[in-house]
Amino acid sequence: MTVRSEPAQHAGMRASNLALVLGEIARTGSVSRARVAAHTGLTKSSVSALVTDLISAGLVAESGPASTERGRPATALALAPAGAAGLGLEINVDYLAAVVTDLAGAPRYHHVVRRDNRDRGVDEVVADLIDVARTAAGSAAAQGLPLAGACVAVPGLAVDGTVVRAPNLEWPRVDLADSVGDAIGLEVVLENEANLAALGEMWFGGHQDDSAPLRDFVHVSGEIGIGGGIVIDGEVFRGAHAGAGELGHVVVAPGGPRCACGGHGCLERMAGQQEILARAQVATMADLTHACEAGDQAALDAVADAGRHLGVALASVLTLLDPAAIVLGGAFATLAPWLSAATSASIGHHTGATEPPPLLVSGLGSDAAVRGAAGTVVRRVIADPAAYLAQRPAGRVGPS
Amino acid sequence: MTVRSEPAQHAGMRASNLALVLGEIARTGSVSRARVAAHTGLTKSSVSALVTDLISAGLVAESGPASTERGRPATALALAPAGAAGLGLEINVDYLAAVVTDLAGAPRYHHVVRRDNRDRGVDEVVADLIDVARTAAGSAAAQGLPLAGACVAVPGLAVDGTVVRAPNLEWPRVDLADSVGDAIGLEVVLENEANLAALGEMWFGGHQDDSAPLRDFVHVSGEIGIGGGIVIDGEVFRGAHAGAGELGHVVVAPGGPRCACGGHGCLERMAGQQEILARAQVATMADLTHACEAGDQAALDAVADAGRHLGVALASVLTLLDPAAIVLGGAFATLAPWLSAATSASIGHHTGATEPPPLLVSGLGSDAAVRGAAGTVVRRVIADPAAYLAQRPAGRVGPS
Repeated sequence: MTVRSEPAQHAGMRASNLALVLGEIARTGSVSRARVAAHTGLTKSSVSALVTDLISAGLVAESGPASTERGRPATALALAPAGAAGLGLEINVDYLAAVVTDLAGAPRYHHVVRRDNRDRGVDEVVADLIDVARTAAGSAAAQGLPLAGACVAVPGLAVDGTVVRAPNLEWPRVDLADSVGDAIGLEVVLENEANLAALGEMWFGGHQDDSAPLRDFVHVSGEIGIGGGIVIDGEVFRGAHAGAGELGHVVVAPGGPRCACGGHGCLERMAGQQEILARAQVATMADLTHACEAGDQAALDAVADAGRHLGVALASVLTLLDPAAIVLGGAFATLAPWLSAATSASIGHHTGATEPPPLLVSGLGSDAAVRGAAGTVVRRVIADPAAYLAQRPAGRVGPS
Repeated sequence: MTVRSEPAQHAGMRASNLALVLGEIARTGSVSRARVAAHTGLTKSSVSALVTDLISAGLVAESGPASTERGRPATALALAPAGAAGLGLEINVDYLAAVVTDLAGAPRYHHVVRRDNRDRGVDEVVADLIDVARTAAGSAAAQGLPLAGACVAVPGLAVDGTVVRAPNLEWPRVDLADSVGDAIGLEVVLENEANLAALGEMWFGGHQDDSAPLRDFVHVSGEIGIGGGIVIDGEVFRGAHAGAGELGHVVVAPGGPRCACGGHGCLERMAGQQEILARAQVATMADLTHACEAGDQAALDAVADAGRHLGVALASVLTLLDPAAIVLGGAFATLAPWLSAATSASIGHHTGATEPPPLLVSGLGSDAAVRGAAGTVVRRVIADPAAYLAQRPAGRVGPS
């Protein structure tokens, strides 16, 4: 049995109480110290001391009078608008993006650079990403937003700061977190873009105020590749080797053509952007959208065909995972007006379900992943403010 | 904030400590009071008092001298061989089964009645199940095993004691738990047979002593229907509406023939027992096995074809869920010698994975679900012995 020392126990309890108080302020948006005490079970004097620390660390601000229960005046607490901020970055096949999010999750900076990254060297793309990151960090500094860290959305599998697989970029192993982190002086983590898009949708997609907020759903993220994010009880499901949710490689044409992943008949091979554009005989997604708007039959047929393939994959997803909703994101959100009817019909045909779960369309589209990346950083601060405080001189506790 | 009364707090703490102590005894198999105290962090006197209660309730027995650290003699504690037992029952399309399991999970009674239940009325099948259950309960009584409850494996979806869907039996809604429970005087719960088969495999499939015990895997259960059990971190994953894991209805032939579920091209429609038997031109699974053993080409082709379809479904499962292993159970375990090569090749072709997770073969075969059902009952006693004690006069606590 491990015997813990008293100071360590004390620090652990302080850390968990700081998280309890900050979490309550984040959850409610605006709340008095007395209500925080009532809802957390902490004493009023403990709450006052913890709130003082959170205010001096810049994470919480007094925001005017709070509603009170017995007419006594009280001061409302809220997340500080200039508290810790998060830098979200995204490398995708045909663009780079950056978002700065404040502690409450509101976007304070957003920039997208469209450029095909497939024909360029890894070093060139990483250098561009660092430029994009520096510009975003400059904007955060100019707005007085202290960045708590950065998270990079990658179109592939990342393990411990290294991109280990990015089939659509054809990258070797790339130690991306260290390269970017050293250049911008922030702690950097990597995450699959489809998983981040699912989180972005859950946090910022406008579902928070729904009668049933999204907590168990599958998010379809269609860029050049097709990705999927499986969210179970509010958490991304990653599987045994962090490879879960690869919707683009569900088999929709058994024995079909070879896919870039090495498999055959994958959804991405049958309904990815390149396939749709080729069938529609147009060059870009913007051209495709215009053609659909103009009622071009080849374009409409190409999109409907992709929708049917997507419906086959989603039929298997519903059968295996029984989610409460499916969200069409990325390019599929843009194409939804011409795609969802075919997808729904295909789901119905292949599952026989009379009431399949709702097929929602993302309001964030291709921004979901980079929004989710920035959100991941500030969510981590809210979940563990003590760790954030420990990085700042003002928040240091105990001997060091 | 809810203010708990002191006695309620005390009872809650006693319940959680009883579970801690019994769980430690179950985990280790044989252990001294002193080691239980060291591993749980409880005082030796608390452990002694709790163990006395568990012994008087018949759940724990002293089993001879324990190994000691400093040469002092100590008495070993183990789960009582005649402690609470579990009754597992199974209704399947072509058989009924019962198992009695002692507290350590060892089977003490096992009986299977082969009979096609599709052409018979619900009442007739339920009456037969009650007969099977009574005979099993009689055997438990004769062996001095007190039954703590029963769990029925059903080939479909069960919610709160009611079978709400059983496509291969074509049953209406059936309040099965009450019917069986009233007849045999035990609390009865229902669970999907594919989920129970996965749990049976995890608990009793011989993987407990492996270097990496099964905790994250998908179990394929092939009887007349094809089911799947998804286990994530040791727990069955049920999805948002308890319908997850329906491997038999993953789409393996898009636009293919209609399935009993209302969908099209489902795995079960393409590779279920009826389909295999029809293609092999034999009448029963026993005939099929004999034909395969004799090298009959039609039989071998039919099984390999089913294996290829199964591989398509499993390719999508691997892609979506990234499990650490797949276990072939039920009839697929019996057919594994002629099926797994085709399944593995199809998985490889459709995923391109050079090292897919292992394709294991269940040693329990068609017994996995009923073993899992009985195991569920005794696992519940071990997880919450206070609830079991509260049902027995000897174990009653507090005013009543």
